[in-house]
Amino acid sequence: MNKKTKAAWGLALGAASMGGAWAQSGVTLSGIADSAVRHVRNEDLGGVTSLVSGSNATSRFIFRGTEDLGGGLSAGFHLESGVALDTGANTTANTLFDRRATLSLASKQAGELRLGRDYVPSYTNWVRFDPFSHVGVAASANFVSATPVGPIKSSFGASPNTTTRTSNAVQWLMPAGWGGLEGGLMWASDENGTAANGQHKVKGARLGYAAGPLVVSGALTRTENNLTTAGHFDDRVIAALYDFGMVRVSLALRRFEQADARQNNVLLGAWIPVGNGEIKASLQRVSFSGSVGAASLDDNHARQLGLGYVHNLSKRTALYGTLSHISNSGALAYAISGGASGLAAGGSSRGVEFGMRHNF
Amino acid sequence: MNKKTKAAWGLALGAASMGGAWAQSGVTLSGIADSAVRHVRNEDLGGVTSLVSGSNATSRFIFRGTEDLGGGLSAGFHLESGVALDTGANTTANTLFDRRATLSLASKQAGELRLGRDYVPSYTNWVRFDPFSHVGVAASANFVSATPVGPIKSSFGASPNTTTRTSNAVQWLMPAGWGGLEGGLMWASDENGTAANGQHKVKGARLGYAAGPLVVSGALTRTENNLTTAGHFDDRVIAALYDFGMVRVSLALRRFEQADARQNNVLLGAWIPVGNGEIKASLQRVSFSGSVGAASLDDNHARQLGLGYVHNLSKRTALYGTLSHISNSGALAYAISGGASGLAAGGSSRGVEFGMRHNF
Amino acid sequence: MNKKTKAAWGLALGAASMGGAWAQSGVTLSGIADSAVRHVRNEDLGGVTSLVSGSNATSRFIFRGTEDLGGGLSAGFHLESGVALDTGANTTANTLFDRRATLSLASKQAGELRLGRDYVPSYTNWVRFDPFSHVGVAASANFVSATPVGPIKSSFGASPNTTTRTSNAVQWLMPAGWGGLEGGLMWASDENGTAANGQHKVKGARLGYAAGPLVVSGALTRTENNLTTAGHFDDRVIAALYDFGMVRVSLALRRFEQADARQNNVLLGAWIPVGNGEIKASLQRVSFSGSVGAASLDDNHARQLGLGYVHNLSKRTALYGTLSHISNSGALAYAISGGASGLAAGGSSRGVEFGMRHNF
Repeated sequence: MNKKTKAAWGLALGAASMGGAWAQSGVTLSGIADSAVRHVRNEDLGGVTSLVSGSNATSRFIFRGTEDLGGGLSAGFHLESGVALDTGANTTANTLFDRRATLSLASKQAGELRLGRDYVPSYTNWVRFDPFSHVGVAASANFVSATPVGPIKSSFGASPNTTTRTSNAVQWLMPAGWGGLEGGLMWASDENGTAANGQHKVKGARLGYAAGPLVVSGALTRTENNLTTAGHFDDRVIAALYDFGMVRVSLALRRFEQADARQNNVLLGAWIPVGNGEIKASLQRVSFSGSVGAASLDDNHARQLGLGYVHNLSKRTALYGTLSHISNSGALAYAISGGASGLAAGGSSRGVEFGMRHNF
Repeated sequence: MNKKTKAAWGLALGAASMGGAWAQSGVTLSGIADSAVRHVRNEDLGGVTSLVSGSNATSRFIFRGTEDLGGGLSAGFHLESGVALDTGANTTANTLFDRRATLSLASKQAGELRLGRDYVPSYTNWVRFDPFSHVGVAASANFVSATPVGPIKSSFGASPNTTTRTSNAVQWLMPAGWGGLEGGLMWASDENGTAANGQHKVKGARLGYAAGPLVVSGALTRTENNLTTAGHFDDRVIAALYDFGMVRVSLALRRFEQADARQNNVLLGAWIPVGNGEIKASLQRVSFSGSVGAASLDDNHARQLGLGYVHNLSKRTALYGTLSHISNSGALAYAISGGASGLAAGGSSRGVEFGMRHNF
Repeated sequence: MNKKTKAAWGLALGAASMGGAWAQSGVTLSGIADSAVRHVRNEDLGGVTSLVSGSNATSRFIFRGTEDLGGGLSAGFHLESGVALDTGANTTANTLFDRRATLSLASKQAGELRLGRDYVPSYTNWVRFDPFSHVGVAASANFVSATPVGPIKSSFGASPNTTTRTSNAVQWLMPAGWGGLEGGLMWASDENGTAANGQHKVKGARLGYAAGPLVVSGALTRTENNLTTAGHFDDRVIAALYDFGMVRVSLALRRFEQADARQNNVLLGAWIPVGNGEIKASLQRVSFSGSVGAASLDDNHARQLGLGYVHNLSKRTALYGTLSHISNSGALAYAISGGASGLAAGGSSRGVEFGMRHNF
């Protein structure tokens, strides 16, 4: 740390202590730095070793703050940028705050009005039930790609834009304290744009219930754009989680659907506390049904098994290791990211990684 | 707010309080988050609804600081980045600090020497007199574009580079306390570059006088680049403002000129304080004269009427609503940003937006 | 400084002072703002005046922090972004943290494990011995470019990727207190990528000894990629520095080698303290030998003389002026950055600059 910088904060304090009225206002710089060494072997294509970013939690930095407006009202902003910690690259070209860019007006009684780029309800409803948080070698993201022709590729072309986030959204989020209920509504206009530009009509909703060891939750996100002229893209998730103490178990079902094409993802997850750490396991299955044009999607399925251990060095810092294995059948060739390209249909992919995550 | 982050600032304080010498040094992270829902209807092309960023004040984040060098001297830096709060995108690709990137050496007696990217004198002299600060549906920016062939398009091609800012500038700015006088001088080399790369020869000056309720001010910015070989591009602004208490009124005249082409913008503005808020109104007219090559620019004019209300929830946060209407005549087709494309010459554009602005 | 922002830090303090446990954790925003007016004259091509960024030290901003994990262990991250202070541009497109992006686990006894993008050992071993720190008109960087066909161009094509930094690296760095020894090891996988994408196999090592006025140090960085199929690219540096009190003198030798092509750089440097400032001088020579294919590289050499003065206004802020002269012979046309393009082989380049550097 830089002496001069320290001094700046010192000055800031001096000034602030004069006026307690500002005491509930704030802006912070925080984030996560996460890096791992990964080895992936796709069938008989040979292994590839790489340094990767964000295998326990996506590397990022965040500027955010809130202001207490009185009467239970508050204003807040959140700007969150993905960072490739292995190369220093932006995770999305020319979109610094690719993870989140929102402005909020929140009421303790009536909930939060949130404007801007954020997670869609279906993703929010899914990631919480994935022990690997959608990232790393055992990521549930491995089964959400635009590679096979199916509802996702039909609706977005190269990039599955609204399976995780959407830009241009207006959201209402329930306040805490509605008897365990949680969730919200999302709406976005396509702004006369195209899927390639990330401009979609989006309507979404989520409703959950959390009480003691139980969470149950359902969500729907509906996307319309210039590629879904024959209807719309639907992303439905229902999921539950129960904490037995010795183990926390989750089950989540997700269906992507467009026109006659359907993709079904099922995830079974477990978290087992062990001393200063946690064992994590997930089993996922993806299957397709229906058709795209004249081509049937039946008999395409794949399975992923993930197993990991996270060892906490402190509340902020952890070491981790994860194993993953994908087996495809039919025309599918899902693979763990970071391996050699060219996996044949029906092939398998294996991966292992060891890394460190540091919250700042 | 993150506990660990809080702690960091805490540590910073501890260190700083040991050395009072640094008390006038500092670095801060600040900015503005501003988002609005906008609806624009261009003649009979149908309405478009969108989420937009920066309609009351451009969304941004700022790193800045100053150091007291003693004897009335100080050093300072200012890095300011535009943010599209609706999508998280950078407002300028690959130019993070597109709004300002400067290094300063300032003297209380002799003024400030400022190096880097900043507003040109003409823009500084204009925006202060626009009740809508050049942004939003009623922006005076609506009449500063490269769309019609005229002096701006002739001088810059696709992008009107120096009507707002210039890179590579050396500036001298008057100190406070010269009997109400204010202003400065700007110079930039073209560095052997091109208009497309934002490299222009720029010379500019501003001189103003502010005393009590009155401000009068004039500025000239002259740009030369590879597209102005037949002369140079001149951007002249004269303006005045008077605060009657019940209402603050402004009048500003701006002329863009290159070779035989001239564009004249006139703005009449008003601010009316109402309780915790403010009513704002502006009337603008643009007209062209002269010619580009053999083509006459005469008989091209347009008018914009803007009306808005800003309601302050606190000193930092406000809600606002704005209406705007543009009517074109001749070959002009100026439109409010965010509508359907393809407005015909002589058409009209209407817009409305409701938003929130939060300073952090 | 913004009152609200001040308040934020104030709040942060209040919270932090409650929990001393976090006292060794921290995150800071710091950096350097450096700008200069430069004039370069390449032989008889006419002079070019420009505003440049980072002539005393590269302009940048840094997010970094460390956490004390107890028992001599600590975790840390470092994200460092180059800034073009003259234009506000990112110094590398779509790679925000182009200067450094690392995550570390450090032990006082066993050293630091560092993952991510960072300097290669050879660069670390070179820059310390260059009085002009590789930047500005007298930069030793002037003799490290991909312009002449030689080992660098043969190995990297357009961009000399690993002569300064590499992505995807795993490093071990010696702890302090091993009897004056310093240095470390670096390894990076090519991740099945290409030189154009900055993906190289890199192996590097550095070993130095610092005691009192003396520093001696040697380093090797070996790069393999899709362009070095006939072997590898080697970057070797040996260097020494002695502080005589009145003057600090350095000598550094660097050899770039690939297949039959060799480039040898020799640098002689001096720092002379003068009151609140320092005079700096460097003499550099580059020569080529061997061949690329059938073409001999012999009889190509160039020389650069640099002379500068840095005047400290405070510990954080300095004014500086630098002169530089390059003379080429043979087919070489090395030139100071910022001049007119098209310098003929064997031509000369002269430059002068005056600037200001401010650490924040």
